[in-house]
Amino acid sequence: MERIPILRMGRLLLVTIQVDMHDRLAMTLQDDLTTRIVTDRATGVLIDISALDIVDSFIGRMISNTAAMAKILDARTVVVGMQPAVAITLVELGLTLEGVSTALNVELGIKMLERGGACA
Amino acid sequence: MERIPILRMGRLLLVTIQVDMHDRLAMTLQDDLTTRIVTDRATGVLIDISALDIVDSFIGRMISNTAAMAKILDARTVVVGMQPAVAITLVELGLTLEGVSTALNVELGIKMLERGGACA
Repeated sequence: MERIPILRMGRLLLVTIQVDMHDRLAMTLQDDLTTRIVTDRATGVLIDISALDIVDSFIGRMISNTAAMAKILDARTVVVGMQPAVAITLVELGLTLEGVSTALNVELGIKMLERGGACA
Repeated sequence: MERIPILRMGRLLLVTIQVDMHDRLAMTLQDDLTTRIVTDRATGVLIDISALDIVDSFIGRMISNTAAMAKILDARTVVVGMQPAVAITLVELGLTLEGVSTALNVELGIKMLERGGACA
């Protein structure tokens, strides 16, 4: 199970992060995701982090990097399901999710991507 | 992270299983899912198992039980993303996913639930 599944919904890809991230897993995810953006001709990526109680600088950077890669491939990234405690921690730690849009949940994230509202 | 996130998409709920299941986690998932079916008035449940290389009798039973619970609450369950090797193992072990419909991927699963094609 050393692979985070990427689910396709129309022109969007959905990734649910629910395991502890480590270097290799993050790299595999980025590899898989960029490949899938190209093969599935995806226009948007949803990253669900509702299962995460903590987002440290490693995960924060991983998400930013993934969004940057998607952007180069002309896909927008929206992070959904962030827990209130995670938002507090991110601000307190001074971690900004550079170039990443956020939405409350998957439904709103899909709407945001469909109307092209996420920052590219 | 001792909780599998349940994502809502319209009247459907999506669960992606990507961690090793154990008793307590399975019980928490069933608790959460039945609660969410009621609170979100869901009509269908999608269980994505594309990350699973192996489905043993424990997971098989867990999926069947979850589907049975959903059925009582008037929601249909579709298992999506089963790997070919898992299908082979299930048949070889004589494990049938009782009362559970399957679809190749999330998109087809959503279509199946929307046209009411999944066995109730």
